[in-house]
Amino acid sequence: MLLARDLFEDLRAERLTPRDVVDLCALAIAAQEADVRAFVALDLEAARAAATPERAGAPLAGLPVGIKDIIDTADFPTGYGSPAYADYQPRADAPVVRQVKRAGGLVLGKTVTTEFAFMQPGPTRNPRRLSHTPGGSSSGSAAAVAAGMLPLAIGTQTGGSVLRPASFCGVAGYKPTFRILPTVGMKTFSWHLDTLGLFGARVVDVAFAAAAITGRDLDLANAEIAPPRFALVRTAWADQADAGAHAALEAAARAAAAAGADVREIDLPAEVEAAHMAHPLIQDFEGALALADEYDRGVLSPLLSAHLAASAEITPDAYDAARRTAKRGRQRLGDLFAEFDGLLTFAAPGEAPHGHGSTGSPVFNRLWTLMGSPCVSVPGLTGPTGLPIGIQVVGRFGRDHRTLAAAAFLERALAG
Amino acid sequence: MLLARDLFEDLRAERLTPRDVVDLCALAIAAQEADVRAFVALDLEAARAAATPERAGAPLAGLPVGIKDIIDTADFPTGYGSPAYADYQPRADAPVVRQVKRAGGLVLGKTVTTEFAFMQPGPTRNPRRLSHTPGGSSSGSAAAVAAGMLPLAIGTQTGGSVLRPASFCGVAGYKPTFRILPTVGMKTFSWHLDTLGLFGARVVDVAFAAAAITGRDLDLANAEIAPPRFALVRTAWADQADAGAHAALEAAARAAAAAGADVREIDLPAEVEAAHMAHPLIQDFEGALALADEYDRGVLSPLLSAHLAASAEITPDAYDAARRTAKRGRQRLGDLFAEFDGLLTFAAPGEAPHGHGSTGSPVFNRLWTLMGSPCVSVPGLTGPTGLPIGIQVVGRFGRDHRTLAAAAFLERALAG
Repeated sequence: MLLARDLFEDLRAERLTPRDVVDLCALAIAAQEADVRAFVALDLEAARAAATPERAGAPLAGLPVGIKDIIDTADFPTGYGSPAYADYQPRADAPVVRQVKRAGGLVLGKTVTTEFAFMQPGPTRNPRRLSHTPGGSSSGSAAAVAAGMLPLAIGTQTGGSVLRPASFCGVAGYKPTFRILPTVGMKTFSWHLDTLGLFGARVVDVAFAAAAITGRDLDLANAEIAPPRFALVRTAWADQADAGAHAALEAAARAAAAAGADVREIDLPAEVEAAHMAHPLIQDFEGALALADEYDRGVLSPLLSAHLAASAEITPDAYDAARRTAKRGRQRLGDLFAEFDGLLTFAAPGEAPHGHGSTGSPVFNRLWTLMGSPCVSVPGLTGPTGLPIGIQVVGRFGRDHRTLAAAAFLERALAG
Repeated sequence: MLLARDLFEDLRAERLTPRDVVDLCALAIAAQEADVRAFVALDLEAARAAATPERAGAPLAGLPVGIKDIIDTADFPTGYGSPAYADYQPRADAPVVRQVKRAGGLVLGKTVTTEFAFMQPGPTRNPRRLSHTPGGSSSGSAAAVAAGMLPLAIGTQTGGSVLRPASFCGVAGYKPTFRILPTVGMKTFSWHLDTLGLFGARVVDVAFAAAAITGRDLDLANAEIAPPRFALVRTAWADQADAGAHAALEAAARAAAAAGADVREIDLPAEVEAAHMAHPLIQDFEGALALADEYDRGVLSPLLSAHLAASAEITPDAYDAARRTAKRGRQRLGDLFAEFDGLLTFAAPGEAPHGHGSTGSPVFNRLWTLMGSPCVSVPGLTGPTGLPIGIQVVGRFGRDHRTLAAAAFLERALAG
């Protein structure tokens, strides 16, 4: 894999030029893209032309970045994973795309999304084992980083679309606190849930990229990280995690403790668990409105169309009640972080499922999307068949630096 | 003016046909649009063709509706008030446009917005006195209703863009609780603040339209309204309201009390007043990101471009602190509504200012936009020169029915 933060150091020290890094991507793409199918659009020539030496001085130092094709770009067509937008060319870059460009990043191409970032899979395969799903909906972003075709890629999560593919593909996935990265210019599914996220090889890579893109104090660089206080949390849905996922979570807890972290297993407060069931009500009530035009025009897949038809039955009262449940959950969750720096929990129910008919289950991600919490999928462990299993670190709303540091601590502990 | 709820009754009783109502709009448009300039696009022929008798059975009964041109429409070009989008044709209707159509409304045309719903005025004039501003940024929507050219129109508010033009034009303006109407498909300025709103002749008209569009229990019909408990609130910015505005607010308080309401003057809690200053920090930090593409391409007016250049200096820390201030304000404001059904306050600093170089000040609206509170500008009073002055009723987050009822009570009290 291409290590964004190390490449940044090499670029700053002029051991590499921005053009060299584009060539590294191009080599991996030539070798792997035919199998992995992570991209829907790609412009290596434009990237080479833009990869001037001066870029090395910018915050992203000319690093190539992939943009999930649910996000508008003025230089690339934007298809939202739907044939209805096959020829669509947005007029403007989404703000996050401008942030990447302003930070000196090179947008190399657009990565595969499932249809409107819902459940209908795209063509992407898992680079760790091509017969398996890469997860979704940010399938292409996770797979491109895992295959070494990109050092960084942007995805989105409404249920579990950053954390799950990161876990399945064995990369770091970071979903920041709600709305730290602007969702403007992405095709909306649910305005209370849609959240942008970042993929990189390691936790330090996504932390570095988030700092460069947002101007926030998030880079971990060579920081010493004090041993965090972790709560081990299996949630009320623990029986949906398979034996491999349980073994990985326990191995992570042991490694963190051995490295000096305080790890204590807890049950989530009832108000927090209750919020889990509020997620689909909020997501689907809003999705039925957000995609009303496409639904009415009959341009959706049967899967999504049927889902939205059912979703239209959710009443405003049920939706309002779900929002109140979520609010109570967020308040109660905040209290927990007086005692803990992060929660250690499942990123996915296990290894990537076999086949490409489903992108897997977001059951261990929905609650944390609804809470707006910063979440990181930490790579480093594998399951019984040798595919990756990520460990999710959930942090306090607005405390992204602390969350990323806790995740990096775990990553080092797993490596050490 | 065209009274939406009365027209609805006439349509249901077949005293009028949907086609008749389109013709009423067409007559007023022929007489007034050349002076008022409320529309940027209009298709009376398409509306007539769609105005079938069966529509009368739908929730909006075939009533014509205007859509502020900051909101995407698949049937009309959408210019966002900017020459940069002069030829822009969105692919999809915004969800609120689909909600209007699904409810049986006829989208007659697009109404003038200021440039990207900021402060640079459009061509619209105040139908109450053409030499005066109609207010902004929902200039065309407010003016079209005031001129009797439309019974209903949709606008948006980020600072004071629904309440202020409603006050200046002498119509009812209703800004629902944050995100009850979806902002998807509107050009974003600030994702924490942008809110859709409705214009109609009277409070009962906007309540009826909101019910028809959202399916929520908001219609006031012929409901008896129990006398509400009002807090009279001048805010820390009271010296920016002129003598006419103070006189109108006092007249409203007297009329409400005479009609049986409990009216008590209070000072806002310090935490609520403090949130006022958080508004521009949040709006402008987000605006500088939301319009990054247009800023970088150099297609903005000098006014907006300079504003965003200054806004880019707001640090993430200042923005985060402003959001925390806003959260504390919202919590404290919620407590107030144990004692009151609504706050009575200024909708604008006075009558519509003379001239067309400015759309007036949002100083009495920003705080309530940031609080996410339902707000209604109640027409019925005039200032010293005979132009309208609206009274703002602010309600509790999520209690839109109660807020609309309190506003309707005041409206009846002012008429009686």
